Amino acid sequence: MTDIPLLKSRLPGLRIEDHPTLVRQKSRDFFWYSPVLKRQLDHLTADCVIFVRTIEDVVEALAACYALGVPVTPRGAGTGNYGQAMPLAGGAILDLSGMDKVLSIAPGRIVAEAGAVIADIDRRCQAQSGQELRLHPSTAKTATIGGFVAGGSGGVGSISWGGLRDFGNIIRLKVVTMEAEPRLLDLQGEDLHKVSHAYGTNGIIVECEMPLAPAYDWIDVIVGFDTLGAAAAFANNLGEADGILKKQLAVVAAPAAHDCFNRHRRWLPRDKHVACAMVAPQGYDAFLTLARRDKGAQLLFSSHDLPAPERKGLPEIYELGWNHTTLRALKVDPAITYLQTLYPFPNQLALVDKLHALFGDEVVAHLEFVRFDGRITCFGLPLVRFTTEARLDEIVRIHEEAGVPVFNPHRYTLEEGGMKQTDAAQLAFKREADPKGLLNPGKMIAWDDPGYDYASGRTYLFKGMQQAAE
Amino acid sequence: MTDIPLLKSRLPGLRIEDHPTLVRQKSRDFFWYSPVLKRQLDHLTADCVIFVRTIEDVVEALAACYALGVPVTPRGAGTGNYGQAMPLAGGAILDLSGMDKVLSIAPGRIVAEAGAVIADIDRRCQAQSGQELRLHPSTAKTATIGGFVAGGSGGVGSISWGGLRDFGNIIRLKVVTMEAEPRLLDLQGEDLHKVSHAYGTNGIIVECEMPLAPAYDWIDVIVGFDTLGAAAAFANNLGEADGILKKQLAVVAAPAAHDCFNRHRRWLPRDKHVACAMVAPQGYDAFLTLARRDKGAQLLFSSHDLPAPERKGLPEIYELGWNHTTLRALKVDPAITYLQTLYPFPNQLALVDKLHALFGDEVVAHLEFVRFDGRITCFGLPLVRFTTEARLDEIVRIHEEAGVPVFNPHRYTLEEGGMKQTDAAQLAFKREADPKGLLNPGKMIAWDDPGYDYASGRTYLFKGMQQAAE
Repeated sequence: MTDIPLLKSRLPGLRIEDHPTLVRQKSRDFFWYSPVLKRQLDHLTADCVIFVRTIEDVVEALAACYALGVPVTPRGAGTGNYGQAMPLAGGAILDLSGMDKVLSIAPGRIVAEAGAVIADIDRRCQAQSGQELRLHPSTAKTATIGGFVAGGSGGVGSISWGGLRDFGNIIRLKVVTMEAEPRLLDLQGEDLHKVSHAYGTNGIIVECEMPLAPAYDWIDVIVGFDTLGAAAAFANNLGEADGILKKQLAVVAAPAAHDCFNRHRRWLPRDKHVACAMVAPQGYDAFLTLARRDKGAQLLFSSHDLPAPERKGLPEIYELGWNHTTLRALKVDPAITYLQTLYPFPNQLALVDKLHALFGDEVVAHLEFVRFDGRITCFGLPLVRFTTEARLDEIVRIHEEAGVPVFNPHRYTLEEGGMKQTDAAQLAFKREADPKGLLNPGKMIAWDDPGYDYASGRTYLFKGMQQAAE
Repeated sequence: MTDIPLLKSRLPGLRIEDHPTLVRQKSRDFFWYSPVLKRQLDHLTADCVIFVRTIEDVVEALAACYALGVPVTPRGAGTGNYGQAMPLAGGAILDLSGMDKVLSIAPGRIVAEAGAVIADIDRRCQAQSGQELRLHPSTAKTATIGGFVAGGSGGVGSISWGGLRDFGNIIRLKVVTMEAEPRLLDLQGEDLHKVSHAYGTNGIIVECEMPLAPAYDWIDVIVGFDTLGAAAAFANNLGEADGILKKQLAVVAAPAAHDCFNRHRRWLPRDKHVACAMVAPQGYDAFLTLARRDKGAQLLFSSHDLPAPERKGLPEIYELGWNHTTLRALKVDPAITYLQTLYPFPNQLALVDKLHALFGDEVVAHLEFVRFDGRITCFGLPLVRFTTEARLDEIVRIHEEAGVPVFNPHRYTLEEGGMKQTDAAQLAFKREADPKGLLNPGKMIAWDDPGYDYASGRTYLFKGMQQAAE
């Protein structure tokens, strides 16, 4: 149990809260999307919350916690789904949301503090320079850029730019280590892998330099199809249409689109499988041409044709995608949960059909098309009717046996989640940056279990540092 | 033979020149890159040149030529290599270079007259809005946008955006038909195929609306390798790196880079196969990281590290690519000619190696990496040591038998060039737009030979209109 009076006395300049209601509120992220994580993590709470506003605050806070042996779990807005911000060992939540300044905007790049909210960054960039971030999660309106880099993998924009794991999608990070005298590291290139998608286990991200893309008045469209296969094939075609700039491209199987997208429901017949996309206005005519070529396609919704008053109150299309699809399904049916899967190129369409046939209503297809290693393919974020944990594990196994790797959102460790591969290089860096193992403890198996075999053959989105460099 | 006094009397407001030197100069494009076309077309000349400055001028000129039965061959800057601007049947050259106005610039799009020079468009867009054209030929400094649309296929920018055949890379075209009363057509969507890459056989393009991309201070880099295979693999990797924005990405085999790129020669060891790229500054660190990962890669040249005085006089990297590579080789050795080939995904690297081994020094590899149907692959524009036309045809056949389609730049018809597939729909449009067959006569086999089988199985870059729509 953290000695809070002592901690406060060491950090007289910082706001530290220990009111249980507030601490519990700040000790929760969106882990509850998973019934498994909900069972495992729901009771957890930190002992206090430290609010920081500057890099110096972070350095001070980490030095004091290091001296006192207080575990530190960093937190942005707490919108992660894999439990990245859940404090497994009590201690302090380090709330970075006060570090929210945009520091500079230039052609193609922005520097912002880690706690800056993504939508705020985009508003600033759009107003000042007609630019916006390449990538953001569907939670852009609340999520912070630092939290995204620390635990996101991609999202809106990935159809054009790939994911955060791809070099070039993060330019530079400033990171504070947790040592007797915390150091401020400036990481670029290969070193970005030390902290990207590491849940803050290897240092606290305090500043992010990110690439920008041009901001357009993206047009939201929904196209309907009689079969899931037809919707997926259309989305794949649209994805592969190199001349049509897209920001988002998803497919949701019937009847989930109608049932879950309540504000758009009047446009969505219940039996239609839909492709939802954001298209740059200069490519809208080309998009319509492609849609007309597809005999099975029916344009159900287009923000281009909608009078402004009717657009009011409608969520943007990206807020029907990624984990917002899951969220909307959960609101309709609390028994719904989800998976995160990868349909490997070039068999993505056949595999989508195969799994759809295999599971029927138990696993409702939700596909997110992306650029992946230079090709178009799709992730799955299927809506799963949850019965038991054993059945959920079985559904995971059936996917993997079919050749569809699962990044299991019902596991809170980096390795079991499947996003981040740890290795000796990663571990060596953690020994330097967090020698006492106080940063977000319990999230990296390789740290806690010296016998852990990180050389396993499974698919990781963020490859181990050594493997990546070889 | 054109009755020039009569034509002049019908077009009192237009400048019409018939001085043989001027007419011959305006009757030539870059057809002479091909020894075959040089033999076939070198003697050709039109009878006169009509200079136009407005759409009304074009309408008047076409009406008069229609009435008098004068063939009309449109011309921008005459930088095409397939003989697109060569007048096969005398008549008039319609010089559109006076129609050079930029009409409007908006986020993501520009409208320009057909005769506007591409580099001028880019300068205007860059200055006014930080934007530039997505695609341009290596001849951007002289080529016109209309000529590019009428006979180009892609080029600089294709590594990010694909080609002109891809929907979205041309937004809208205004075209004047050649009838008793010429019509001004506004073509979008499916209809763009009527005139894109049709050499002006289906109407005269007078205005182009094109998509724009953000303009960056692109960094020119050249990376050296000991083997062609290593250079091609690196370029393919860089192409597939979704987070690294590129504008140009080519590979040139040793010793051609050293021998032909004279201004860059001091950086280029003769035995190095090179990858030449333009990288966005926000991706430069990521590019360096990728290059460092490749044990065989050696950064030979980077404009990033070059003091401004040393950059003076150096051509931009894109002027070492596409047909500028051919041009530079031709200057060194007039016996060089070239081919244009496609290495189909996913076997591009194996096929590059195979053909390199097959031909040795007779066919020196020059690869241009592009996005093609949503994947990264490469075109070949190999430097061919020309001996006889029979051997050239044999080299073409060997490529095609190996699974590498050739868009034969030693043929001046649309069909034999292999870029443009004609079909009944295309032909029906030509019947409407050019009922007398006076537009660029002799370039469309399907028009001249009613028995022509346009359903052949060969690979066309611009698919027939019917096939595309099916």
